[in-house]
Amino acid sequence: MDSTTVVQLREHVRKKRPLIHHITNIVVSNFTANGVLSLGASPVMAYAIEEVEEIAQAADALVLNMGTMTSQSVEAMKLAASSAEKAGVPIVLDPVGVGASSYRTSVGKRIVEDFDTSVVRGNVAEIANLIGESTFIRGVDAPDDAKNKENLAIRAAKKLNTVIVVTGEEDIITDGEKVSRIENGDPMLTQVTGTGCLLTSVIAAFISTHPNSLEATTAAVAFYGIAAECAAESIKEDLKGPGHYQIALIDALHMTTNEEIEKRCSINT
Amino acid sequence: MDSTTVVQLREHVRKKRPLIHHITNIVVSNFTANGVLSLGASPVMAYAIEEVEEIAQAADALVLNMGTMTSQSVEAMKLAASSAEKAGVPIVLDPVGVGASSYRTSVGKRIVEDFDTSVVRGNVAEIANLIGESTFIRGVDAPDDAKNKENLAIRAAKKLNTVIVVTGEEDIITDGEKVSRIENGDPMLTQVTGTGCLLTSVIAAFISTHPNSLEATTAAVAFYGIAAECAAESIKEDLKGPGHYQIALIDALHMTTNEEIEKRCSINT
Amino acid sequence: MDSTTVVQLREHVRKKRPLIHHITNIVVSNFTANGVLSLGASPVMAYAIEEVEEIAQAADALVLNMGTMTSQSVEAMKLAASSAEKAGVPIVLDPVGVGASSYRTSVGKRIVEDFDTSVVRGNVAEIANLIGESTFIRGVDAPDDAKNKENLAIRAAKKLNTVIVVTGEEDIITDGEKVSRIENGDPMLTQVTGTGCLLTSVIAAFISTHPNSLEATTAAVAFYGIAAECAAESIKEDLKGPGHYQIALIDALHMTTNEEIEKRCSINT
Repeated sequence: MDSTTVVQLREHVRKKRPLIHHITNIVVSNFTANGVLSLGASPVMAYAIEEVEEIAQAADALVLNMGTMTSQSVEAMKLAASSAEKAGVPIVLDPVGVGASSYRTSVGKRIVEDFDTSVVRGNVAEIANLIGESTFIRGVDAPDDAKNKENLAIRAAKKLNTVIVVTGEEDIITDGEKVSRIENGDPMLTQVTGTGCLLTSVIAAFISTHPNSLEATTAAVAFYGIAAECAAESIKEDLKGPGHYQIALIDALHMTTNEEIEKRCSINT
Repeated sequence: MDSTTVVQLREHVRKKRPLIHHITNIVVSNFTANGVLSLGASPVMAYAIEEVEEIAQAADALVLNMGTMTSQSVEAMKLAASSAEKAGVPIVLDPVGVGASSYRTSVGKRIVEDFDTSVVRGNVAEIANLIGESTFIRGVDAPDDAKNKENLAIRAAKKLNTVIVVTGEEDIITDGEKVSRIENGDPMLTQVTGTGCLLTSVIAAFISTHPNSLEATTAAVAFYGIAAECAAESIKEDLKGPGHYQIALIDALHMTTNEEIEKRCSINT
Repeated sequence: MDSTTVVQLREHVRKKRPLIHHITNIVVSNFTANGVLSLGASPVMAYAIEEVEEIAQAADALVLNMGTMTSQSVEAMKLAASSAEKAGVPIVLDPVGVGASSYRTSVGKRIVEDFDTSVVRGNVAEIANLIGESTFIRGVDAPDDAKNKENLAIRAAKKLNTVIVVTGEEDIITDGEKVSRIENGDPMLTQVTGTGCLLTSVIAAFISTHPNSLEATTAAVAFYGIAAECAAESIKEDLKGPGHYQIALIDALHMTTNEEIEKRCSINT
């Protein structure tokens, strides 16, 4: 896959303006909604048990994010996922912090067992814990382990029968057979909360407007990494920090040009 | 009404610093609180069943926003609204997403039936669904329908016996008799989540410090639209996007001068 | 204590990167998480009854913030606090709005009675209400009462057997014996929601990496005030308002240099 596909799929999102139903965490709600809007998609956050089935089946994709989950939001996630599945709406899971508590791990495992996710995105520790390969996890940020990362992603994709994205310095995307590595991105992403969560939503927008989940996910991860680079460049000369980077990243999801995509795109397959 | 009234009522808000009790949605909580503070009012977000009656009756206005409602927050809304009503505290409703699920529609209808709202602000689809005139609604953003908008607003105001604000490219404000149209505003407002929600809070601040709800609401909508224009102008030369616009809008609620209000104010009655 | 200690303790935080478990309010979650990250610590927000004990005992400090509490989050706070106490994890309480409702006051009192907090940070009205000396409180912002503030802080520290921070134009820190007064800070802090909440988290990060809570708290308050000054200076020439100040403050927690700390530090003991 090359930059032309990234450009095309990003344009598809903008034209189709897919509705992305989120059951997500409190910390990143505003950032995610603004990022999704800036990308050109339409976010809806709705959590009530009484309505999530109706909202999910009318959406173009469903994002389940476990960040600040409670038993109530887990119940809403299950209802929404079941409804999405019946309606053919793709489900993207962000297993935030799986491994940080046994409850969190069991909820994550239950979701991937009970529902057909199209994509699961997490860091090394989250993906490892999700498939029962427990690894040290501290908070929601885990150390990269470059050499085992790709094999972990492949095992997870095969076991869970889904596209897996393992993010870190290099991002791995695989369906268990084909593997892509993305070198786009910027270290500033680690200094802002919810940048992984927002990527998950960007993936949801891309896969909702393209028939091939693996290709759409790869394009989404590349586009997001490129936007992250453009954002870093935009604040560099003013010597700004993570506060401004958060804002610049939102801007970049809207303003990154096709020329930047073509110039910066670094996908290895 | 002209710009002089807008200037005066905005000054009233700053001097009286009204306390606005919000039961609002998770996505916009921080943005709303900062916008209300920047305007010169005092936001309080409190949701516990055990305390909302006490908080609401001590407030200068109560904002009910249905964005990420659950059965619990709906229960809190009802208790707060009942208490506000008894204490003579004006209630402003933002029926976010009414029409997007049957639960949401029924909750919205119940609130306007059971409580005396001073103002209800929504887009075309939300207001239409609230009075049982269902319209296609996709997410929380609905297509404008300019020619029917004014009549819809009048019907809603009469049926619900409240001031209605229908926002869109042009904003309509009516009590069912008098109608104002506001042309202030900026397209960037549609690229940031919660700009409608924040307007609802600005309206609450204005009506809490002025005896005439229709006039105060009109001034609030005009002021907000003017601030939105100033915010757009402030980021234009730096070629910034929706991330920076969100920040610039918060700034503008504080920094918009009386001269800008007089220069830009566009109220048609 | 002088600026050298502030510099050292800030470096400790950066090196140790403590994990700060928050049970905090909806309004400030994103701002707090980004502020803590920018400081160099690692925030985790987790609220589920089923997991808070496990998360709290593995953390380096626990922050309890009462802002948008409900009976559910209060239950989570108690479980987390009990677990933290057993594991020797320091607890920092932010009694947001205590005095604004009888429920809120009773919850605040219960927490300080039932658990050993290391530090409690609030404004005059919150601290007064927490120890049963009710004072007029309007919203969450209370008027300063400079001459009584220090005595109030000492009484509270003795009664609750904890370090007390009373913030305002001047900040008071005391363990009931020693008293420090910090003159650092900027009036812009009052125009952004959650700046007090974020200070509470900064205090948690400092005390989690230093054996002396009083000293660590004093250093944290001074550092935060200095960062607030640097943030104000960074937006002054561009004539920006509270929206940009929020972002600049996040930046400043990362970018404030040791030279700025040495130049600006104003601690009176």
